Formats: sequence, structure tokens, C-alpha cells
Amino acid sequence: MRPVIVKLGGSVITDKRKPFTVKRAVIRRLARELKEVWEPLVIVHGGGSFGHPLALKYRIAEGYRHRKQLIGISHTHLAMERLNRHLIEALQSEGIPAMACQPSACTLTANGRIESMDLRPLRKMLALGLVPVLYGDVVLDAAQGVSILSGDQMVSYLARKLGASRVVLGVDVDGVFTSCPKKDSRARLLRVITPEDVELVQSMEKEARGDVTGGMRAKVQELLELARLGIEAEIVNAARPNVLREALKGKRGLGTMITGGK
Amino acid sequence: MRPVIVKLGGSVITDKRKPFTVKRAVIRRLARELKEVWEPLVIVHGGGSFGHPLALKYRIAEGYRHRKQLIGISHTHLAMERLNRHLIEALQSEGIPAMACQPSACTLTANGRIESMDLRPLRKMLALGLVPVLYGDVVLDAAQGVSILSGDQMVSYLARKLGASRVVLGVDVDGVFTSCPKKDSRARLLRVITPEDVELVQSMEKEARGDVTGGMRAKVQELLELARLGIEAEIVNAARPNVLREALKGKRGLGTMITGGK
Repeated sequence: MRPVIVKLGGSVITDKRKPFTVKRAVIRRLARELKEVWEPLVIVHGGGSFGHPLALKYRIAEGYRHRKQLIGISHTHLAMERLNRHLIEALQSEGIPAMACQPSACTLTANGRIESMDLRPLRKMLALGLVPVLYGDVVLDAAQGVSILSGDQMVSYLARKLGASRVVLGVDVDGVFTSCPKKDSRARLLRVITPEDVELVQSMEKEARGDVTGGMRAKVQELLELARLGIEAEIVNAARPNVLREALKGKRGLGTMITGGK
Repeated sequence: MRPVIVKLGGSVITDKRKPFTVKRAVIRRLARELKEVWEPLVIVHGGGSFGHPLALKYRIAEGYRHRKQLIGISHTHLAMERLNRHLIEALQSEGIPAMACQPSACTLTANGRIESMDLRPLRKMLALGLVPVLYGDVVLDAAQGVSILSGDQMVSYLARKLGASRVVLGVDVDGVFTSCPKKDSRARLLRVITPEDVELVQSMEKEARGDVTGGMRAKVQELLELARLGIEAEIVNAARPNVLREALKGKRGLGTMITGGK
């Protein structure tokens, strides 16, 4: 059975203004919403206020340059594990047999793009009925030593390799806007984005401040890769109660659909 | 450069009498001792009072039989991550760039024996100067659904695959005895065990109570595999200050040597 892949954005499950702060009530609510999914489920979450500050401090996305970064790599990964544990515990409380699947233990990148990922354990987890939970991580990189592997890139990769039935990205805004809705009151929600909208996507602001993984533009670019392969994705507001649940149950049009490929 | 592989026994770093209790002072001391190793280092630790009680409760070593075990697999793995985090934090405090390497994310077993383990990320961690830390874990199994992969089996596997220069197993007794020194006052310490001692090893008591991974006999059996390949191992008392440090610095004869292969 083809799995559903859900991404929980770092800004949904953490407070991005304060380092290492989780939104406990939101995580508990999302666990309840995820409990109602009956298809095989893969969860991927972002770094939010856990991964990004350390990754920035130690300039990990730029690659390995000096030994001082090593302890930074160690701290960045551990911070991500800590966030992951918060989510796993909430899922367990709802009876969901969640199991971490550490990206850096099974993945290599080259210049920040996934070069190899051993999916055999993950496939077995799914087949048994476990819910693998992956996360944005610092991973070893064949070209630059280390890199930051975003949850978004992983979602796109996993959707292709596992033949996902659907992909749902939960973020903290209502979908993809023409400009940043947090700063621009004229921002307009885009209901559908297709591979034909390349220019529009490239014109999107690269809101990279404090986000080492490229923000909304990078998300849309990853998902357009999927749309080209015929895998539909939707970006929805998981900060609003029940939106993620409805999207996972199959309701369309709750946010921005990325679709329209062959 | 060939790495040194160190195993920290679960009974050294946890209090086996009380579930989920770490020996903080011991862990801190071991981190200080490990800091003095200058060769590339791989650390593997056991489950102690974190992994074993849950693995027993949910009968995970027996394989997957019913859906109720799924949440048990989830809890067992998370408990091991929790123990791992204690160790990683202590290592970080000493400036050691330790990084978890989740066995269940990169390993499959078949009937409890390692069938595949993606070592590419781990090799890259070592090459960069990171210290990978692995642990006994619940892993997916091609034949029986799930199994318990002991730290000891992993040590033996890694030593072979990575061409370890030495293997040191830290336990909470002075080495391998003719019988259990905690119960039998006539127990005699064996200074050397070689592949010729097969009968002696098979006659060893299988002290499996509360230990899902087979106790001392299983350890010796794993290490004899290495001795046959010419990789020397020593089982030493890591509960005694400075013994692990001395062993890692190259001192022989501190416990039981497993050696004498081709």
C-alpha cells in the first residue's frame, strides 16, 4: 500500500523566536489528528528553533571547513533528536507506534542533494505497521563534508522512492502566497501551482533569514519535482486545528495544491 | 587510519536494578577517559536498564507476532535513544564531537544476525573526525519482523567491516571468569581466551536473566569471531576508574584478552 507522507514544518511545532522551544499543545493536537490516518504513514519534521540556530552558528550548510565545526555538528544533530523525541512521545501517547529514523545514519548527500539513502529499514518499518519519523538533519556530504538535509528535500525524495499516494506539508500559514503574508497585507493565496508556474516560483522571495533550508520557495520547488511525476502535494496550515486532519482524509483545496504534471 | 572500537556495557553505564536509571558519575568519568584516545573511535553501548526491561516486556527478541508489539518497539527504541543521549551529552561536555548513529535506521537483520548495514554514513563520520556512537537496538528483521541487535554483535561486525585496530569491551567485572564472580567465590579470572577454548566458552553459564542479548558467553562468542580474523579484543572492568583509559592507550593484560587467531 502506498504511504502518505506528512511534513510538519519547524515553525508549526516549535517557537521560532525562542531557541529550543516546542509548542507542546500544538504537537499534542497534531498527534491526535494524525491518529485518524489509516494508511501507512511517514512523518518528516523540520528543525524550527532546534536545528536552525545551531546550524547557522556553526555554518554547517556551507560545508566542512575547520575542526571547530565538529562539535557544532554534534550539537546540531542532538538538538534535532531532542525535537524528534518530543514528537515521538506525543505520537506514542496517542497509541501511534512511531519510530525515529535518523537521516544522518542512512543518508549521504553530495553538495546538499541526496546521493544515497538506505531505505530498506524504513520500508520494513512501514510494512510492519510502524510509523517512521524523519527530520531535517546534518548529514555527511561526499563533496563538502557535511550539509543540511532539509525535511522538504527528504519529503520529495521519499515520495518518489516510496511511491507516495499523497504528500501533505503542514506549515504555519494558509498556503503559498504571492508574497509573504506575515509582512505584506496584499499577499494573495495561490490555490494551485503547476509546473507551468516556474517563473512565478522563481520570483518568490527567498526568505532565508534564520532558515537554513530555503523557506517556502524551496518547498515549492521540491514539490514541483513531484508534480512532474504525477504525485500530488498540498501545503496547508497545520497551525489551524483540524486542517491537517481534513487534508489527510482526502479533502482538497484547503491550502495550495502543487499538481498538474503528466 | 584503522579505528578503535569501544563497547560500554549497559551494566556499566546504567543501574540494572532500577529501570531507566543512568550512572551519571560513571558516564562522566568514562567520557573523560575516552577523551584521551587520539585514534579514530567508534563507541557502541548496551541497553542496561533502558533497553532490556521493555524488550522483555514486549518479547521483542522473539520476533513480531501481534500488533500490540508495535507500540513496544516504539518505546524500546525511544528508551535506547534516551540512554544514548545521556552518553552523547557527557562526551560533548568533554569536547568530543560524538554523533549518534541509529542502528535501526541503517541495519536489517535476518533471524537476529546482521544481514545488511549501510556503513557509508558512519565511515564518513569517522573520516571527518566525528565519533559515531551506536547502541543495542530493536531492528527490523527480514525473517522474524523484528529482533534485538546487541551492541556486542555490532562491535564484532563493525570491527570486521572497518578493520579495527583494537576492540575493548568495558564491563562491570574484571573480565571473563570460569563462573559468575558475583555468585561464585571460586570463580577464576581467565587471562586469555583463544579460538581453541571453544568448549570452555560453550560450558559458560548462559546468564540470560534480564539480559535479552545473552550475557558474557555471547560477548566472548562474538569476540572469538574477531580473534579468528586476527583482530584482538580485550574485556576489561570499565567500572574501575582508569582501566578503560589504560586499555585504550594500549596496555594489555588488564582483563581478559580474546586473541590468538591466525
